[in-house]
Amino acid sequence: MTAPGAPAGQQTVRRHNLSLITTALAAAPSSRAELAQRTGLTKATVSSLVDDLITRAIVVEGEPANGGVGRPARPVRLDPDGPVALGVEINVDYTAACVLDLTGELRCYQRHVVENRANGAAEVIEQAAAVARAVLAEAGQPLLGAGLALPGVVADDGTLLRAPNLPGLAGARPGMQLADALGAPVLVVDNEANLGALASLRADPAAGPDFVYVSGEIGVGAGLVVAGKLFRGASGFAGELGHVVVTQDGPDCGCGGRGCVEQYAGQDVLLRTAGQPDLERLEAAVTARDPAALIAVAQAGSALGVGLASLLNVIDLPKVVLGGMYARLFAAITPPLTIQLNRRVLAPRRPGRLSRSPLGGDAAVRGAAGAVLDRALSDPAGVDWPAIV
Amino acid sequence: MTAPGAPAGQQTVRRHNLSLITTALAAAPSSRAELAQRTGLTKATVSSLVDDLITRAIVVEGEPANGGVGRPARPVRLDPDGPVALGVEINVDYTAACVLDLTGELRCYQRHVVENRANGAAEVIEQAAAVARAVLAEAGQPLLGAGLALPGVVADDGTLLRAPNLPGLAGARPGMQLADALGAPVLVVDNEANLGALASLRADPAAGPDFVYVSGEIGVGAGLVVAGKLFRGASGFAGELGHVVVTQDGPDCGCGGRGCVEQYAGQDVLLRTAGQPDLERLEAAVTARDPAALIAVAQAGSALGVGLASLLNVIDLPKVVLGGMYARLFAAITPPLTIQLNRRVLAPRRPGRLSRSPLGGDAAVRGAAGAVLDRALSDPAGVDWPAIV
Repeated sequence: MTAPGAPAGQQTVRRHNLSLITTALAAAPSSRAELAQRTGLTKATVSSLVDDLITRAIVVEGEPANGGVGRPARPVRLDPDGPVALGVEINVDYTAACVLDLTGELRCYQRHVVENRANGAAEVIEQAAAVARAVLAEAGQPLLGAGLALPGVVADDGTLLRAPNLPGLAGARPGMQLADALGAPVLVVDNEANLGALASLRADPAAGPDFVYVSGEIGVGAGLVVAGKLFRGASGFAGELGHVVVTQDGPDCGCGGRGCVEQYAGQDVLLRTAGQPDLERLEAAVTARDPAALIAVAQAGSALGVGLASLLNVIDLPKVVLGGMYARLFAAITPPLTIQLNRRVLAPRRPGRLSRSPLGGDAAVRGAAGAVLDRALSDPAGVDWPAIV
Repeated sequence: MTAPGAPAGQQTVRRHNLSLITTALAAAPSSRAELAQRTGLTKATVSSLVDDLITRAIVVEGEPANGGVGRPARPVRLDPDGPVALGVEINVDYTAACVLDLTGELRCYQRHVVENRANGAAEVIEQAAAVARAVLAEAGQPLLGAGLALPGVVADDGTLLRAPNLPGLAGARPGMQLADALGAPVLVVDNEANLGALASLRADPAAGPDFVYVSGEIGVGAGLVVAGKLFRGASGFAGELGHVVVTQDGPDCGCGGRGCVEQYAGQDVLLRTAGQPDLERLEAAVTARDPAALIAVAQAGSALGVGLASLLNVIDLPKVVLGGMYARLFAAITPPLTIQLNRRVLAPRRPGRLSRSPLGGDAAVRGAAGAVLDRALSDPAGVDWPAIV
């Protein structure tokens, strides 16, 4: 983004100033004059930077607003038809992909049911790449980069350290494999609950700056947001709600322990107890007030409440956002869950403590794409932008 | 500490510079020349500040070191015979008080067995004040201020929000009452596990910057230290290990829940199961390999391990320091505890994950006094120092 011959100091300043402009525009569109005011940069500097961003299709300048006095201001905004971010989620029983434009709008989305549990890494990645290619073709815009959500613990270098429900991928570096398959950079690789939490931070006004995002899938996880930032713990293993204990002598768990939340409130157990083959059928049975389905959901909600109470007694966050299948089953699962929270959580109750994620089951894949936008717009000179023809 | 007539800007600068000097001296004694180097202040400024601190008996200048070339340097250090910090701990079945001098050395310590459970606030506070007066008389040095450790959740304003094992004090502001009884400022009021964690941060090299300090008393609590700072949660309720669930349908707990850690690993249950009247007798029975005592300790250790595993799966900290009665029973309680951690904690095992607090049962009361020192030495102009006769 900077002239190659410019001295290092000047390049650093220009890089910083560019980030001021894109960060300001990610918050709200503004005229060049407003941008100068909001960033503290001179109008000449703003104009030079905006011109640069326009040639790369990162921002676009609108028509002058009518009706005011004086020379009408032309609003500058991030270009919705410019480069896009790809989100990919590989989960145990589905793969999803989405495209967000630079303004954060969802342009395309696909979710495919696929039984990944028994598959090897190559097969899983190729199938995910196919879904990714499909949404990219549908979007038809140049690709900035991809983010990848995985149902397990991800190391800083992108290695999938632990994925009890996806053994074929454990120890692999799926981000690198996906980058090879797509021929495109994968800029972010993270746990799906963490990315769901980041998506909630972007798009869920009920969440606030301190909350737990709960991801309910085959596995159960939590993303912890403290003071507006993801809390990952010493080695990335924070928020493993699925392996908080409900009953010490309970059923064996894939983690090697017993009686973990996942063995009471995970999708496999819930469907089995309800006698339903999939979530769609379970939702229909709950709506039809089928007794087995209602009992199964109540038991899962109660056990999830016990685990969440322990989590909140450890980390004391004021809000809980339910995502994934818990968002879909929200009305049925929250009464027993709330009973446990009210009985067991020591911190004072807050109005609106429990809410349903407006992103439903799509938080993680949207968070994966959103994390790419966050990274690119907070430091536009730190990523390679696609060439615009 | 500053001349009353000096302009505000100058007072602020002098206050900041004083804090640089005392912070440097809290880390290590230094000559005036070394202090100038370490703080970046001029030698003249250092000398003026040190002279000021000497007149208040906060620092003292030693004899010149012999044997070097040139003018021998005189070491400046915090004055061990100057003002002292008082720590007071009110717990369910004992009250303790200690005095730390400015260098952090323990000067006096007393612990009295007292059954506070059924007592009202006035009685509890008066008894604590009597213990405090006794250690202060023994120390015979001027009092800087006191810190108070309480077995419950403490609000920012010092109100004891929740103390299931000490109902007489719930809702009270014991720090204000103690200040009245002593006629001295109470500068710090906090939960005993939090203060135990702070004491470990000061005095336990095995703890490191990220650890859980576990306090085992009648109640069970944890102080969470993340990146060298206490993590309190949104409303001060973080680290409530005693109310993490071991078995959802377990025995009723004073918190209103069931099957909490405290009902398996708290002191009351442990003594009852072992058939022993107090900790001294329990320790002796364990040493004598009394079967009932060994079984009781093993059951408590296993349940504590289950709760700690849930805690670590939520917050992912690399070290656990056992304090209070768990430090006293360390050898007997750790084997069953370690089995549960190894089975259930998802994060990779670390060498030396579990350690015994070298402060034993005294961490909280020492942390209370230490927190007073931290506050006074990080900003000496922010507290009233006692007049020196």
